[in-house]
Amino acid sequence: LIILDKKYALDFMIFCQRNPKACPLVGVTDVGDPFFRTLGNDIDVRHDVPSYNIYSNGKLLKLVNNIADLWSDSLVAFAIGCSFTFEHSLMKHGFKIDHIENNKVVPMYRTNIKNKKSGPFNSEMVVSMRIFNQKDINKVKQVSGNFSFAHGDPIHIGNPIEIGIKNILSPDWGDSPRKKNEYEEYVFWACGVTPQNSIIEARIPFCITHTPGHMLITDVSENSLHC
Amino acid sequence: LIILDKKYALDFMIFCQRNPKACPLVGVTDVGDPFFRTLGNDIDVRHDVPSYNIYSNGKLLKLVNNIADLWSDSLVAFAIGCSFTFEHSLMKHGFKIDHIENNKVVPMYRTNIKNKKSGPFNSEMVVSMRIFNQKDINKVKQVSGNFSFAHGDPIHIGNPIEIGIKNILSPDWGDSPRKKNEYEEYVFWACGVTPQNSIIEARIPFCITHTPGHMLITDVSENSLHC
Repeated sequence: LIILDKKYALDFMIFCQRNPKACPLVGVTDVGDPFFRTLGNDIDVRHDVPSYNIYSNGKLLKLVNNIADLWSDSLVAFAIGCSFTFEHSLMKHGFKIDHIENNKVVPMYRTNIKNKKSGPFNSEMVVSMRIFNQKDINKVKQVSGNFSFAHGDPIHIGNPIEIGIKNILSPDWGDSPRKKNEYEEYVFWACGVTPQNSIIEARIPFCITHTPGHMLITDVSENSLHC
Repeated sequence: LIILDKKYALDFMIFCQRNPKACPLVGVTDVGDPFFRTLGNDIDVRHDVPSYNIYSNGKLLKLVNNIADLWSDSLVAFAIGCSFTFEHSLMKHGFKIDHIENNKVVPMYRTNIKNKKSGPFNSEMVVSMRIFNQKDINKVKQVSGNFSFAHGDPIHIGNPIEIGIKNILSPDWGDSPRKKNEYEEYVFWACGVTPQNSIIEARIPFCITHTPGHMLITDVSENSLHC
């Protein structure tokens, strides 16, 4: 979830259009309307996220559990697709995913992969990482590739250094992963922290996001997000 | 190609996000920038379309062959994916397409399928129609479904009446088709005339589109538009 003043909304929406793997837009409210009318019957962005981050000029001001008093007629809310969607599908195909098995947060990393710029939004891509057996990689690509509204197939497989990640055991967000063994590969997906990070780095005067790990849950099933 | 004042650009982009099958956005310029920098090296919206329609308050004012004198700092250009992309792929899979075989324009129809509204944009879906053998329908769905940036798989197969088309032999745009035989079906796709039509029906003060049949050709290959 990302909430911006309408002044920045067009540039941000163009940023998402230009970087669809990192910023898959699944819903946008009308300007000033706090309901995602295309994502469910009663999805109110002012209350339906368990925790919100409030930013001012790129600095985290505070965490709150609703934004009823901050909502205004000039705000627009954007819902970005989430890796939970393809992870759920991978699990249904019998794959085990480390961080889920261990009840941890997926490791996420800044990279040197350039996004396509739009207006003030111009950061590098953030990726999430999961470890899979080499023999399973093709199936993993195929299953996750079905979800173009949830980051799609991996953007990199193999050596973390090639995308600017110096130490795989030390992620920028989330929990540290284990080391892969000789039969495995590190598999990287574009991550929805990318647009959040872009907005924070653009230091726009005011924005609201969900607190990482505290997502907005919609009424739209993962099957309807297939491309 | 659709060109609008920035004042309407966010509402229009949200309209496209909400109706992706009819309005697959493949590129958006920065406000005031006449180049589609993400679609090629030198794609200048002022000159690179063979014929432009100029509308004022929903009325067609004139056709021109460049818009250099009409371009301004407040305009934004949108490139919408085109059925040529999936038609080309269908032909590579061995399918014959009537209107292409006969050097005609695909028949297009107004329907009763409601689009999801955004701001002033709120028209019904326009569809294009092609006739295929019943035994080929699954393959046709699969091949066209690979192109989520070019309308994707069909939105309706079978009886035209069900989507509000009274006379299949009398399209609203394009050339009249033949009647299908007993082994065939009418197959309907969401059509890029939908967003043009929405803009015209919204009667916004000023907009520019390509003249139907006179598209913008980008440097992006159809393979890169696979989802």
